[in-house]
Amino acid sequence: MGLAESVEDLPLLSRTPDEWAEKALEEPLALLNDHAYLEKKAAANAMELLNRWPEPTPPEIWTTTLTSIAQDEAAHLNSVVRLLSRRGGHLERTHKNAYANALRLLVRKGQGNEELVDRLLISALIEARSCERFLALARVSAESDRELSRFYSRLGASELGHYRVFLELAGHVLPDAEVQSRWTELLMAEASILAKQPPGPRMHSGS
Amino acid sequence: MGLAESVEDLPLLSRTPDEWAEKALEEPLALLNDHAYLEKKAAANAMELLNRWPEPTPPEIWTTTLTSIAQDEAAHLNSVVRLLSRRGGHLERTHKNAYANALRLLVRKGQGNEELVDRLLISALIEARSCERFLALARVSAESDRELSRFYSRLGASELGHYRVFLELAGHVLPDAEVQSRWTELLMAEASILAKQPPGPRMHSGS
Repeated sequence: MGLAESVEDLPLLSRTPDEWAEKALEEPLALLNDHAYLEKKAAANAMELLNRWPEPTPPEIWTTTLTSIAQDEAAHLNSVVRLLSRRGGHLERTHKNAYANALRLLVRKGQGNEELVDRLLISALIEARSCERFLALARVSAESDRELSRFYSRLGASELGHYRVFLELAGHVLPDAEVQSRWTELLMAEASILAKQPPGPRMHSGS
Repeated sequence: MGLAESVEDLPLLSRTPDEWAEKALEEPLALLNDHAYLEKKAAANAMELLNRWPEPTPPEIWTTTLTSIAQDEAAHLNSVVRLLSRRGGHLERTHKNAYANALRLLVRKGQGNEELVDRLLISALIEARSCERFLALARVSAESDRELSRFYSRLGASELGHYRVFLELAGHVLPDAEVQSRWTELLMAEASILAKQPPGPRMHSGS
């Protein structure tokens, strides 16, 4: 399976227009708050994969890759919260993520390697979409808010790496052809789920 | 509350004899396997504290501290698994930790700040004991296995930092006198729980 090397190559079936980023950036603190929860969820997700499936591939691939991702996401969470705090915002006590929840409903539960591959592919999809969104935000804020633009740009590059890694891990669990066919299905589902989201200052809102 | 600046100052009510470390090091792969699970649990614990209590203290203290700990523990897990793998071992699929489970039974559940303080103090205790044990392992392996000795020494220093941070966080949640009195109780419980553990190649085994 070919892996995207840049955001332009990402296989996502829809593209985020600049208008989405312009709208989202109208409420930067709400956007950062939503973003903090996503990073927290991403770190917890990597740890949960390690707990549920201690070693489905050799440890030098599985455990070291997932712990690296958990470290990266914890570092991102740290950066987002510092930025949020420096700009006078703070973490809200609750958070909803209808987009990720809808994606997680697609997991084939209780089916061993199929369940694991679905978890990995959905993780890859969320990383890919987040990468695409970060780079839209970086582009749109490039002149108005250079700190924010650099921040989003740095995170976008990291999420691109994670998208690749999750896809690679899936390829260690089931044969390539099966992974590819499921990936194609999930790419279509993702574009459809994203299109149904209401607009608002959230990383995975509709546009 | 005074915070230990070195392993000698740790307020633990019992000390691990070198014989414990000599015995544990007879099965280094089993010890590394047990250790890997502890690091995984420690990373997951920091993330769980963040999820259950999103912001009990200002975010620049709470979230950034816990995300730093989660990052450190994920990095340690990564190091342990690489070392385990390089030495021909691998993560076992299951793991028991009777010591930590017994400590967690002491948490005053459903009591808001008391529950949170107990979680933080027990985290501090586990870090303090792990620090003490790592340094015993580093001392005993200093001549026989320099790689392992340096590894344990580095991790011991990091856990000393974590012990301090968890105690400081507890001091943000309840008044110092309450934290101090609970800490004294828990220190006694910890020494008693540790003394009851059976011996074996585990970080928190009896000696």
